[in-house]
Amino acid sequence: MKGVILSISPAARIVDITHDIPAQDIEAAAFTLLAAHTTFPKGTIHVAVVDPGVGSNRRPILIEARGQFFVGPDNGICSYVCDEAKPRIFHLNNPKYFRQPVSDTFNGRDIFAPVAAALARGIAPRKLGVEVYELVRLPSLKPQISQSGLITGRVIHIDRFGNCVTNIDQRELTDNMVHDGFRLTIQGHHIETLRRFFAEETRANKVFCVWGSAGFLEIAAKNRSAAKLLNVKRGDPVVVTRP
Amino acid sequence: MKGVILSISPAARIVDITHDIPAQDIEAAAFTLLAAHTTFPKGTIHVAVVDPGVGSNRRPILIEARGQFFVGPDNGICSYVCDEAKPRIFHLNNPKYFRQPVSDTFNGRDIFAPVAAALARGIAPRKLGVEVYELVRLPSLKPQISQSGLITGRVIHIDRFGNCVTNIDQRELTDNMVHDGFRLTIQGHHIETLRRFFAEETRANKVFCVWGSAGFLEIAAKNRSAAKLLNVKRGDPVVVTRP
Amino acid sequence: MKGVILSISPAARIVDITHDIPAQDIEAAAFTLLAAHTTFPKGTIHVAVVDPGVGSNRRPILIEARGQFFVGPDNGICSYVCDEAKPRIFHLNNPKYFRQPVSDTFNGRDIFAPVAAALARGIAPRKLGVEVYELVRLPSLKPQISQSGLITGRVIHIDRFGNCVTNIDQRELTDNMVHDGFRLTIQGHHIETLRRFFAEETRANKVFCVWGSAGFLEIAAKNRSAAKLLNVKRGDPVVVTRP
Repeated sequence: MKGVILSISPAARIVDITHDIPAQDIEAAAFTLLAAHTTFPKGTIHVAVVDPGVGSNRRPILIEARGQFFVGPDNGICSYVCDEAKPRIFHLNNPKYFRQPVSDTFNGRDIFAPVAAALARGIAPRKLGVEVYELVRLPSLKPQISQSGLITGRVIHIDRFGNCVTNIDQRELTDNMVHDGFRLTIQGHHIETLRRFFAEETRANKVFCVWGSAGFLEIAAKNRSAAKLLNVKRGDPVVVTRP
Repeated sequence: MKGVILSISPAARIVDITHDIPAQDIEAAAFTLLAAHTTFPKGTIHVAVVDPGVGSNRRPILIEARGQFFVGPDNGICSYVCDEAKPRIFHLNNPKYFRQPVSDTFNGRDIFAPVAAALARGIAPRKLGVEVYELVRLPSLKPQISQSGLITGRVIHIDRFGNCVTNIDQRELTDNMVHDGFRLTIQGHHIETLRRFFAEETRANKVFCVWGSAGFLEIAAKNRSAAKLLNVKRGDPVVVTRP
Repeated sequence: MKGVILSISPAARIVDITHDIPAQDIEAAAFTLLAAHTTFPKGTIHVAVVDPGVGSNRRPILIEARGQFFVGPDNGICSYVCDEAKPRIFHLNNPKYFRQPVSDTFNGRDIFAPVAAALARGIAPRKLGVEVYELVRLPSLKPQISQSGLITGRVIHIDRFGNCVTNIDQRELTDNMVHDGFRLTIQGHHIETLRRFFAEETRANKVFCVWGSAGFLEIAAKNRSAAKLLNVKRGDPVVVTRP
């Protein structure tokens, strides 16, 4: 893919965001894209290709959202980024900008990379495909918040340290809902400790909450994998109550 | 190696092709180079250093083939790229372009990187070494094809998904030899299904064939590692018959 | 972090040195930085963030040493680089150059990357923070050498091949101390073989010594992990005697 991009757009700056997405793991990619894209300059083109449906009739798409571009399969990979944005979506159906012949097993090389490179050279999105208005979406990032303040969320990501990232977003909460006393329940375990940073917790194996760098509440353990310690998997429900 | 290259040729564009070559695995590197180089611009310099013989009398070489350059040890790593090309080969024996002193355990840093950087600055291959006409070669990529159409090949690569890449090249086959009905035998298992893309197969654990993006026939399994499922290792023989 | 750097300093060249530092492993990072920095051009800015103490009162620092810059937490990560240099050290306490708000769980993004980018744009170190004269240091790299020539060192790194890198530095030894006959003892095993390069050893599973590319004596095994074969961990003591 890098060779294709540099062949078409020699001046493109290519940056690897991660090498840690497990095979076929669309949700891990979606979260990584959500967490990472915020720091990139306006106009950055993100090429995100976790693509188990390659070759099928799932659509290749280009998304314009939050001042940046996202190129990849329409399988939810860009869905978190679009969760609160008003994206423009283009179905990449102009083979003029594809590498030919298009392999049915590697669209990353033959569709997504050349389209991203064309975009980098200034080709307008509407020349690359037709605008559409639907997007395959993962379950929304929004947790449910009841009138009484009960928050029902889920684990959306487990990072390489074993920290469990929930979909409870600091920016969405009434002030101090968590800070002023809370009980988080996950897999039958109760957590009532909120730390400001990881090293603030000094008790070995102790599980605690912390606000992660992407703005979400995380469940962590002192020098351990919280995911292993609590047997948590992505998707597991999380409930926060105020005692 | 990147530091050496940028010290000598500050304008060089450095691109990582992979971080997944197992330690000492020359054949995995040879296949990766074969699959990846085709998309890069004319004149690209590939530095490929899987080098268990570092420090011994194995030759450091520079190869000019297919409009691109390949720098590395003469241990077969560039052999697939040269399989059907007419390469020019240079034995890198001009220490003027080495980093001094040359470590006997890391020629990547002290020979291959600085030579690649010199080449990037426009130094001619013949100044970097003397032209030679022999190359250490891995077994040829060509499968045997009998007059009756029996194809005898082997597994040349197992990718990170567990797909088994054979040396049966779509471009070498009489049309539809595989498409029109076939039986592929590997490790005692018979496969008679050819899918156009991975998701076309819908039965769990089902093993099938698919044309991979590098042009070779691959053995895959639905959401599984075919290599594990069939207990296949690189080098295992593959036979294709037409029933 | 890359997005932050490119947003502030679009012309910056970003190079990944490694993707193999285990989580929280400050010493592995310190060794990698020591081994890798020597090849980079004068003025290179190294951003090194293995940071278990993020958010605590451990200081974020900038170090100027050996003609290069090092940005990261003051937890020993830059300590090997400074072992024999006379570093200038700046406590990064000017929030003007931070990304706001500063996350207490990811200073890499909010402090180290933006400060490195500011430095790349030509901001002077003294504007980024106040000069200080203390540094958190890992145990010195210097082995003990007795008057009788007994060397007492330790394993400072185990690389991906399982080679055990000691802190016995070729440049520190009286000539041929090792070359002329020696016995290295580690974990109860005795090694009396020094090879010039890895492939020079031809006996399967044989353990031997070799001078590594960073200048330190390494313990290796023929096509095996010496660390596993001898059950060696980082920090294990190494003694060299002349029989």
